[in-house]
Order: sequence, then C-alpha cells, then structure tokens
Amino acid sequence: MPGPDRTKDIPKNISSFYCALTQELPSAFQSKQEQQPLMANPDPEVSGGGEQKKAQGENAEPRKSAVPTCQQKAKARLLLLLSYISGDMEVFAEWMKKQFFLLQLLDWVLRGAAQVMFVNNPLSGLVIFAGLILQNRWWALNGFVGTLFATISALILQQSRGAIAAGLYGYNGILVGLLMAVFSNAGDWYWWLLLPNIVMSMTCPIVSSALASINSRWDLPVFTLPFNILVCLHMVATGHYNHHFPQVLIQPRTELANITWAEVDVAKLFTAVPVGIGQVYGCDNPWTGGIFIVALFISSPITCAHATIGSAVGMVSGLALAAPFEAIYFGLWGYNCVLACIAIGGMFYALTWQVHLLAITCAFFCAYLGSAIANVMSTFGLPACTWPFCLSALTFLLFTTETNTIFKLPLANVAYPERNLRFFWKLRKKEKLEREEKEREEEKKRDEEKWRAKEQELLGNDKEVLRMERMDGKENGDGMEGKHMNEIMIQEGEMMEGALGEVSSMAENV
Amino acid sequence: MPGPDRTKDIPKNISSFYCALTQELPSAFQSKQEQQPLMANPDPEVSGGGEQKKAQGENAEPRKSAVPTCQQKAKARLLLLLSYISGDMEVFAEWMKKQFFLLQLLDWVLRGAAQVMFVNNPLSGLVIFAGLILQNRWWALNGFVGTLFATISALILQQSRGAIAAGLYGYNGILVGLLMAVFSNAGDWYWWLLLPNIVMSMTCPIVSSALASINSRWDLPVFTLPFNILVCLHMVATGHYNHHFPQVLIQPRTELANITWAEVDVAKLFTAVPVGIGQVYGCDNPWTGGIFIVALFISSPITCAHATIGSAVGMVSGLALAAPFEAIYFGLWGYNCVLACIAIGGMFYALTWQVHLLAITCAFFCAYLGSAIANVMSTFGLPACTWPFCLSALTFLLFTTETNTIFKLPLANVAYPERNLRFFWKLRKKEKLEREEKEREEEKKRDEEKWRAKEQELLGNDKEVLRMERMDGKENGDGMEGKHMNEIMIQEGEMMEGALGEVSSMAENV
Amino acid sequence: MPGPDRTKDIPKNISSFYCALTQELPSAFQSKQEQQPLMANPDPEVSGGGEQKKAQGENAEPRKSAVPTCQQKAKARLLLLLSYISGDMEVFAEWMKKQFFLLQLLDWVLRGAAQVMFVNNPLSGLVIFAGLILQNRWWALNGFVGTLFATISALILQQSRGAIAAGLYGYNGILVGLLMAVFSNAGDWYWWLLLPNIVMSMTCPIVSSALASINSRWDLPVFTLPFNILVCLHMVATGHYNHHFPQVLIQPRTELANITWAEVDVAKLFTAVPVGIGQVYGCDNPWTGGIFIVALFISSPITCAHATIGSAVGMVSGLALAAPFEAIYFGLWGYNCVLACIAIGGMFYALTWQVHLLAITCAFFCAYLGSAIANVMSTFGLPACTWPFCLSALTFLLFTTETNTIFKLPLANVAYPERNLRFFWKLRKKEKLEREEKEREEEKKRDEEKWRAKEQELLGNDKEVLRMERMDGKENGDGMEGKHMNEIMIQEGEMMEGALGEVSSMAENV
Repeated sequence: MPGPDRTKDIPKNISSFYCALTQELPSAFQSKQEQQPLMANPDPEVSGGGEQKKAQGENAEPRKSAVPTCQQKAKARLLLLLSYISGDMEVFAEWMKKQFFLLQLLDWVLRGAAQVMFVNNPLSGLVIFAGLILQNRWWALNGFVGTLFATISALILQQSRGAIAAGLYGYNGILVGLLMAVFSNAGDWYWWLLLPNIVMSMTCPIVSSALASINSRWDLPVFTLPFNILVCLHMVATGHYNHHFPQVLIQPRTELANITWAEVDVAKLFTAVPVGIGQVYGCDNPWTGGIFIVALFISSPITCAHATIGSAVGMVSGLALAAPFEAIYFGLWGYNCVLACIAIGGMFYALTWQVHLLAITCAFFCAYLGSAIANVMSTFGLPACTWPFCLSALTFLLFTTETNTIFKLPLANVAYPERNLRFFWKLRKKEKLEREEKEREEEKKRDEEKWRAKEQELLGNDKEVLRMERMDGKENGDGMEGKHMNEIMIQEGEMMEGALGEVSSMAENV
Repeated sequence: MPGPDRTKDIPKNISSFYCALTQELPSAFQSKQEQQPLMANPDPEVSGGGEQKKAQGENAEPRKSAVPTCQQKAKARLLLLLSYISGDMEVFAEWMKKQFFLLQLLDWVLRGAAQVMFVNNPLSGLVIFAGLILQNRWWALNGFVGTLFATISALILQQSRGAIAAGLYGYNGILVGLLMAVFSNAGDWYWWLLLPNIVMSMTCPIVSSALASINSRWDLPVFTLPFNILVCLHMVATGHYNHHFPQVLIQPRTELANITWAEVDVAKLFTAVPVGIGQVYGCDNPWTGGIFIVALFISSPITCAHATIGSAVGMVSGLALAAPFEAIYFGLWGYNCVLACIAIGGMFYALTWQVHLLAITCAFFCAYLGSAIANVMSTFGLPACTWPFCLSALTFLLFTTETNTIFKLPLANVAYPERNLRFFWKLRKKEKLEREEKEREEEKKRDEEKWRAKEQELLGNDKEVLRMERMDGKENGDGMEGKHMNEIMIQEGEMMEGALGEVSSMAENV
Repeated sequence: MPGPDRTKDIPKNISSFYCALTQELPSAFQSKQEQQPLMANPDPEVSGGGEQKKAQGENAEPRKSAVPTCQQKAKARLLLLLSYISGDMEVFAEWMKKQFFLLQLLDWVLRGAAQVMFVNNPLSGLVIFAGLILQNRWWALNGFVGTLFATISALILQQSRGAIAAGLYGYNGILVGLLMAVFSNAGDWYWWLLLPNIVMSMTCPIVSSALASINSRWDLPVFTLPFNILVCLHMVATGHYNHHFPQVLIQPRTELANITWAEVDVAKLFTAVPVGIGQVYGCDNPWTGGIFIVALFISSPITCAHATIGSAVGMVSGLALAAPFEAIYFGLWGYNCVLACIAIGGMFYALTWQVHLLAITCAFFCAYLGSAIANVMSTFGLPACTWPFCLSALTFLLFTTETNTIFKLPLANVAYPERNLRFFWKLRKKEKLEREEKEREEEKKRDEEKWRAKEQELLGNDKEVLRMERMDGKENGDGMEGKHMNEIMIQEGEMMEGALGEVSSMAENV
C-alpha cells in the first residue's frame, strides 16, 4: 500500500508546494519575455505537466544565488519530484502511452477512481483504493470491478480515447460498484452481486455519453449523474423485497426525531468532516476519510481545502435544519457539499474570492437540497446518492452574471484548480495586452491622421478644386482602390509626363 | 391603502379605457401618415409608455369638435391620468431613475409583487400589498421581506439592471416569502422563519438565472419555476416532523370523498372565482381576491379578463372531475388556471380569438394537470404550488402550428397584452406594406424594362453597336464602377482622343 | 377481418421477401450503372415505395432465363403484390390523395394505429384493429375514438399535413384511448369515459408538438411520451377514489413475492412472448399478440424479428430479476422491450450487426428500467405505461460513438428498417465513390505536375533566368491575375513592342 509511505513526505510537500505556488504568482506578472511566447502558442502550456516542472524550475532559479547550498539543492529536487506526482501527472501519462496495455488500463482505472473527486491522478487513485481497502475489502473489490468494466465498456463502445485515459469513464463505474455493494442487503461476499455490478458498470458509458449529448449544449459536465441514475435504477428495480438482489430498507421519516441539544457530541461533530469526505465513496470510517484528504492534497491543495470546507458546511447545515445527530455524525450531510464545493470552487470556475464565496453558497444550497432529496427518495426506498450535488452544481454552473470576476472555464480547458487559475490569469493578461495593443494602434492611427491633415494644409492652394474631388473620392470609394485611383488622377494633373512612364505607374496599381 | 381609493375611479375608467381602445383599432389602420414614421423606427414605440398617452391623445382629438365641452375636457384629462397609471407606467419608471436609491428599490419591490401576475406596474403592486395586509399581516411582511431580499440578491449578483427594475427578480421572492409563511406549521409571528425566508429569497436569482440559461434556448420565460423549486425544497427538506421549521401536514387522499350534489353551494361557487385569483398569492379571502382583480385592471383589462375566465374554468374543471367542494370553494382549482390563462391569453401570444380559445384550452389542461400534480406532490407532503401553471404554460408556449393567427411574441418584446397587441398589428402592417412595396417595385421594374425596350426601338441605328456594348456593360458591371467604365468608353467612342486620354480613362477603371 | 386471410400468403411471402432481400444485397454493389443516376438524385428513391417494386423487378430479372416458367411468373406477380402492401404502402398513399376526405381520414387513422409499433402501413393498422376487437370491443372502440380525435385535433391545430398523413398524430391517440379504457375501474361500456378520452386525445397533438420542439434540438422523435404524460395525467388526476372516473387500484409491493422455481410454467413463458407484443396495446390475449406479429410482418420483417427478440429479452430479464411469474406471463416485462428493440434495431439506426447487439442491450436496459419505473409509479397508483421504452430508447439514441458502423439516421430520413438500410448503403457507396473520385483527381493532379516538370526540363536553357522569375511570380501571385501579369511581363521582355500595343494588352487584364 503506497498510501502510508507517501504520507511521510506530505508535511514537507505542503510547504514546498505552497512556496512554489506563491513564487509563481508574482513571477507570472514579472517575467514578461518568457511568458509572451507561451501566450502566442498556448498549446504546449495546456498539455504540459512537464511544463509546470519547467516553470517551477525557472521560477525557482532567479531566487537562488549562483552557488546553491545543499538545502536548496534538496528543495529543488523535491520540487521536481513534486511536479511529477502532483496535478494530473502529465509526464507519467505520456510515459504510460508507450507501456503495456494492461498497465495503461490500470492507470486509467486508478485515474477513474480519483475522478470521483475531479482528480485526474493515478497516485491519488491508488491512495483512494488504499482507503477503500481499509474500510471494507468487499466494497473495494466491487469498486475495482466497477471501474474496470466501465473502462472496458467505454473501450468496446469506442468512446474518446482521451476521455478514457483521463478516467472520465471510470468514476461512475467505481461509484456504481461501491454503492451497489454498500446498499445490498445480502451481506458482504455475496458473489452474485458482481453480475449486476458488471452489467450496470458496463451501461455507464452509454448513459454518460447520452447525458453528455444533452449537457454539452450548455457546456456542462455530466458529473455523477450516470451513477445516480444507474444505482437508483438497480435499487428501485429490485427493492427491499427481492429474492436475488435485496436492498437495505430505507423508509421516510414519520415522526419527530429525538433531538436534545445537551446530547450533542462535539468530538463526533469534528470527525464528521473527514467522514463526510469518506461518504463520497460511501465510507463511514474517519481514517478512510483522512486518507482521501491526503489523496486530494497530492493532486491539488485547492481541491483539498474546498473538500474540507464543503464537509464542514454540510455539518453546520445539518445542525441548522435540526437533522438527527446520527445522520450528521455519519457524514450524510457532508458528501454532497464536498463535491459541490470542489466543483464550484476552482474546478469549473477560475478561483477568485467571489467564486470562493459562490462555492460556499453552493455548499449550503446543496446541503438544503440534500435533505430535500433524501426525504423524497426515501419514499421510494432510495438513498439520496449524489443527486443533490449534481443538481446544485449544475444550477450554479448554469448561473450567469454580468461580473467578470466569476469566469466559467470552457469545459475543454478544465484541468485542476491550480492550472485552471493559471489559464485564467493568462487569458486575462492576453486580453489586457490585446486591449493595450488596440489602444496603441488607435493612437497611432490618430497620429497619422493628424500628420496627414497637417501635410495637406501645408500644400499650396492652386490645386484646391482637384483636391476637393480627391477628398470626395476618398470618402466614397472603398479603401485602396478609390485611393489609388485618386492618386493617379492627381499624378496625371501634376506631372503630365509621357505615355510609357504613365503605363509603368499603372502597372504597379494592377 | 390606495386600493379602495382607486376603486372609485374604476367604473369611469372602464368605459373610457375601452373607448380609447376601440377608437384605436380603426385609427391604427386609417392614419397611415402618422404611423409610417413609427414603423420606420419602431424603437421609441417599444419603449414608450408616454407614447401610449400621445397616441390616445391623437386618437381622441379628431373625434372632438373645435371647441371642446367641459365634459370632453374632463374626459381628456382622465385619459391622460390613466395613461400615467395603466400599463407598465413607463413615464413613472423614467422619472424614478433620477430618484434616491431606496425609492427606486421600493419601485422594484412593488413591481416585483405585481409581476407574479405578469403585471409590471408599481401601483398594482401597492394594491396587491394592500390586499395581502387585509388577508394576514404576518404573511404580508414575509412577502415583503422575500421580494426585498430577492431584489437585493439580484443586485449583489450583478444581474441585468433592466430585469431587476421590471421586478423580474422580485416576483419569485414574494411567492417564496408568502408561501413559506402560509405553509409553516409554527403559527404566525414565528420570527425565526424570516431566516430561511431570507436565505431562500436570496437564492431565487441564482435559480432564476440558471433556469433562464436553459429556457432561453427555446425563448421561454422561467415563470414561477424558481419559486416552485425553492418552496418545495424548503418544505420537503424540513417536513412536518421538524423541530425548527415544521410544515403543515399534507397527505394523499386514501378514500372516496363525500360528494352530494344537493349540498353544492352556488354562492360559494361564485366567490370561488375571486378566491381563485387570491390563491395565486395563497390568500383565501374573497375581498383580497377582489382587490387583486382591481390591481390587474389598473394595468391591463385584458389580463384582468383572462384572470377571471381562468378562475372560472378552474372551478368548472373541479366540478367535472368530482373534486371535493371544499377544495373548489377554497380556490385551489383556480389559481393555476388564472396564471395559465393570463400567460397564454395575450401575454406571450398576441391576442386573437384563436389565441383566446387556446388560453381557455390551456386553463382546462392546467386544471387537469393541477389535480394530477396535487395528488403526486401530496405523497411527499407537498402542495402543488404553481407547478401546474408552469408546466402547462410552457407546453402551450412550446406548441408550434402552421397558422399565422397564433403569433408567439419574441421574449424581448413581451410587455402587457394591449401593447403586445399593438406590436403584433404593426408587425402585420409592416409585413403587408413590405409585401405591397415589393409588388410595386416589381411592377415598376417590369414597366421600366418595357419602356427601355421601347426606347431602344425608337432610337436610330447609327450608334447601335456602341449602345449594345453599353447595355451589356451595365448588366455585367456591379454598380458604380461598371457605370463609370461605360461612360468613359462612350466618351471614348464619341470623342476619339489621343493615347494619353485613353490612358487616363483606363487609370480610372483600375 | 383481413388479418386471417392474409396469413395464408405469409409462408410464401416470407421466402420470397427474403429472396428479394438477399438478391438485393449483392446487386446493390454490382449494378453500378443503374445505381449511379439514383445517387445523383436520391429524392425519387426516398419517396418511392413504387421504386422498391421496380428495384425488386430489376433484381429478379437477371436471375431468370429468357423464357420465364409459370412458377416464375407467379412469383413475379407475388412480388409485385407484396410491394404494394409491404413497407409504408407509398403507392396506396399517393392514390389516396385523390380520394374522398373521409377515406383519407380512415387511412390516417389506420396508419396511426400501426405507428405505435413504428409501422406506417394502413393494412397493418387494419390487422391491429382486428386484434383489438378480438381482445375487447369496448377497448377497440375507445382506441378508434382516440386515434380519430387526435387526428382531427391535429388537423384543427394546423399541424404538418405530411406528419398527419403518416399517422404520426394518431398513435398517441390510440394508446390514450385504449389505456384509459384498460385502466378504468368503471367497467366496460361506461360511456361517460368517452368524454375524457376525447379531451385527452385532442390534447395529444399539443403535447406532441411541444415535446417535438424540445426533442428536435437533438434530432430525436417524441416516441409515446405524449401518451405517457396524458394517461398518467388522467389517472393521477382522478385516481382510484373518484366518483366520475375511478382508476384501477395499483399499489407498491410491500412484501416478498412467493417465487418457487418448481412452479414455473414453461408453456406460459413461451406464450409470454406474443403476449408481451400484445401488451404494447394493453392486450393480454396471446392470439391478439400473434395477430400483431402478423401486422408487423406485413410491413417489415426486420421490425417483426426485433419485436419478438425484444419480448423474449424482457421475459428473460424478468426471470433474472426475480419478478413474480404472473407479471411475466402477463407480458408486463415484454412490451417496453419490444418497442425499444424495434426502435434501436433498424428503425432509427441503420441495421448492422453492432446495431443489432445494441438493440438487444437496449432491450435489457429497458427491462431493468421498466421494473424500476413500475415500482416508482406504483407509489402514485400509476402503471409504468411506456415510460421505460421512451427513456431507454432516447438514452440509446443520444448515445454517441466514434465507430461508423453505428449510424443514426437523420430523423427526416427514417422510414422502415429495410428502406433505412438501403439509404445507409447508398450513403456509404456515395461516400466511397466520392473518396475514390477524390483520390483519382489527386492522382491526376500529381501526374499533371510530373508532366509539367518534365516538359519544363525538356525546354532549352536560353531563357532560364526569365523563367526563374516566372516561377517565383507563380508561387507568390494568387492565381490568375498574378499569372497573367507575369506572362505580360515576359511578353514585355520578349517582344519589347510600342507603348500603345502594351496598353491594349493591359486593358485586357483589367
């Protein structure tokens, strides 16, 4: 299990990553010469995990003196290492392309496992699987089977190879697999369950593709809608009273919950935060939740921060709406808010403080919606799944405003919050440069016009009549042709030379 | 309370307004000279509440003799006054723009209150608030808070200023505020309720904006969908069994209602019509309903008429579907039909008699749908809200037909039925004129061609060859250039000058 | 009843139709000369039921010897007859256009009855009505009234005449009429039922048109969604406890069904296949189902085959998901799969073996979804109607893939599987020809270039310098003008004539 091994490096990584990040911010605005060519051709930028390394290396250099100390060298090496394992591990993905197919498939499966949290990182996926094994081996197996078959099905159905490689066809699979196991009433290691698990996972890419056809009209992602649809489908198709695949019994609340504020357990409320993150994968073990936090941090600290904020917001909302304490402790108020807060806070919007506030608003809205949907679904014996997250995030992504501090990234440019932010900054800078360029050009034009007006004033009055015609011609004619024509006419009037000379000047105009 | 004061003028207003209206109809087709410039530049027309006054003044004038009697003077003054307070009070809105911000906000809040009924008129809003206070002060307060905070939230979220000023962000707020108070089981003056009220009202603009992103693809309004979503959200998230915000208990019907036709109370059936209009705001007091009718009449008699028709249709449908009499008396069968009938009958379609029939059909469909949705929602302990209205009106707006008597107005041109109607007539007239213009032009062309053919026949044969070339050149050349070339060529032919002259003419052609 | 009469011809028809079909396959690729003109102008092809006859005739001819035997003559006549009654009976439709209006209306009603199964064939419609009468005369009457009034309503609402003539406004009407009678708890011959029946049927075109406005954005059909919406509307608006229009009582399952595998009746399982097809129209009589199979076969054997496969898949799914045997015997697991399998298997996709597999997958998905929706709907006392079919078919039609073996037909070109297939083949062939044409042209170009290069090599070296300039000019100049200019320059260099001659040559270039 590589998870625990990696965690040793984390404390160091945290500081260094933030260092790199904070260094980058001013440097992005200082180093004009090196940034400009990137802007002219943004492609290597977008597809460059390796570029991130380079940029960090470049940024790190000027700060250092000519002779780097031992500690500085170590730091540089750490940063390099970090660039390999953080973000979406582009270098690794490139290297993977030349490997054996089964290895590639494993990479896709791991990325799929992490994509539930919008993380496109196989290392995070590995850590997440570690957390799942810690929670329940049978569930982890089902999750793995789900991811694997969803990915295979996407390959069979000839879906976009890029999307498969990013794990975008796997994340619904892992959720389908996990949650079918979680909500099965047949107990663990009921091997028959793998059958509907495989069937449902393999249906994932079809539903994903169909939903993408609709959502793409508004440039929206499908989120975990395929998972929601398919798990609800399976649960309600079989139900609690089924011989083959019975589901746990879920019933609507029909009496007042017994809530005594004196009984509230503050320690449990605090553990509700990691548990809420764990509940994204249906896990109620706080350690598993903690491992998931680590997995998020590896790829993107911003994602990690918003996940924690979201879970906390969910807990607070639960208390505000007088939810039974058990549900709050169990993380049921957290997981949707976690996802909603990640999605809005930097993932699909470029992170500004307004967007940060919007993400928190969305988390509150999601908590409210979560309670509502849970009550509605319980009528059918269904859990809320991640419907609240999907609906609230879609609502907040459809929302439009006239301010330019809330910038929704084009779906094709969504990567991870840190890269999205850089994309946003560059776009802004490019716009600024273009605006300046335009202004400069306009100024130039105005100067030219002034200069011309002066020049004409300086010319004598003996050809005034001719010139009046000329001005008319300039105004009526469309650009070059009219201009040339007039010039020739003037030349005619002014010079009156021989025929051959005339001809040559005309040939030029042709 | 200005409502009762105004009602005194109503009987007079009715006749005069209709007079003005009926006068306008023929005059719109007679006075060609004064209409044509308006058509060439329709903008001042569209943005002209003041123009309405002017038009009425103009229409009124020719009817009068040179020396107006005292009565006629009074009538003219009444019409002028009427033009200031009816329709969308454009003059007032213009005047408001220069006022203190809080006054503006009040204007927006009042317009928001009236926009529930598609009325963009602060006076109607004031009358409606009067009706609400008559019904229940606590509800009225909640409604006011809802409208206020929804409008403020829209300002914070930088939504379109024009839409805010028209009250389009307030009407969902007032409904959210009102209905949350109406369905709360905690009794009146439970001050904590203002908290979720403010939260939900402030969420309104987000949901409105998100829904508008979807609906605008089909050029559809969002109606009261945000209100429906948010109130259902709040009610089902908390439910009847909640410590903080308990809701009234709503349960599905599980036995045959006791309906004896002998027991039907005809008087109560008749009061069900105004009660149905009052139920749009959740009010069961027939006087409140009556006040609302007045509020509608101030702005638009067509709206008022369709509201009444809608409510009556709802009542009849209730009887046809064997609904319990209490529900009918309580106006529960009316309010959705009221809104649906207003929306289709002249608001989003231009009113023709076919559209009028369509509006009545829509009201019947809406009543049916209302019963269905009420039964479905009761399973979740929810009221029907205005879902039936939204769904039926959207259905009837999505409906397309090949007839041109059913004309759906572009969403940007929707104002109030009377203005919509004028917009529609002008469009028709413009189309007709254009068609006639085209026909005339075509005729002209044909005449010209004939004339030319004749002219050419009459001309002598000595310059035949030259002229043939000329005609060819005119047909082939595109406009000015070709013409110049031909003229020069003709000069050439006529004068036969030296090589230099030749060159200069050619230079022009270049 | 023409159904039984026709069945006598079926055994012969089967073989001959398949013969014609299998002959056509190779011939479609062989007879290049006769196919090419069709491709240049595909319109007569698309609108040609008569063309099918011709094609079959053409295909049949080369196989025969110069002197046809008696048996061959009979076969040819049979094929001709077959072409008149199979497919969408285009010839008959053309002939109908000149008939009395009531006859036309009858044609539209019959086509509407068959369109439930995507069959645009009045003969099939007649057979289907025969089946319905065999099942229950009251239901048949209601179905007829529904189709009739839906068609009339579409005429009143001025919908597309072509769509009405194809029965596309009738099929929802027949289902509305039938199922309202089937689910009515008031017993047969309760004449009042015709009232809501007529109202709901007449609403069909409005709902159809509205849904089409939405679905057309994704080039999707509306399927039986209007029927689902309106029947559910009627049933839930009235409910079981209604004085005027009581519905049968449907309640959710609340205990374990008693399933003993020893009790399974294999014969009944086999009859479940035709019963499943019958249940599309709400009929549980296996003979009625058998008649429907005949009706499908008349128009399109592919449709017929997929209907049978779909019904079988539904039955198997029911067994797999531990459904009560009674529900399976009753065909409730079959009818949605029947429709889904027909829709995907050749109707909206061109039939390839990948599409065939997709159709079977869709049928399984539909069965699963059917169970889920039935359970959800039972909470509201509603049957599943054909929601599962609509949702699953829409999902599978929205699904996109990068393979070109799954070709979704443009909605305007959808006819019946056999014609769709021909359309697809022709498109493929056209593409292939175009590709070949392109390749040939490219080859030609390359050859020309080679030839030119050689020619230039062969030319003498005395004008080398001049030519170099020429080549440069050709590369820099944009096409004709540059070329001419260069040529003139060269002429200049070569000839060196007088100024006037020069001028004239230049004038030509202008």
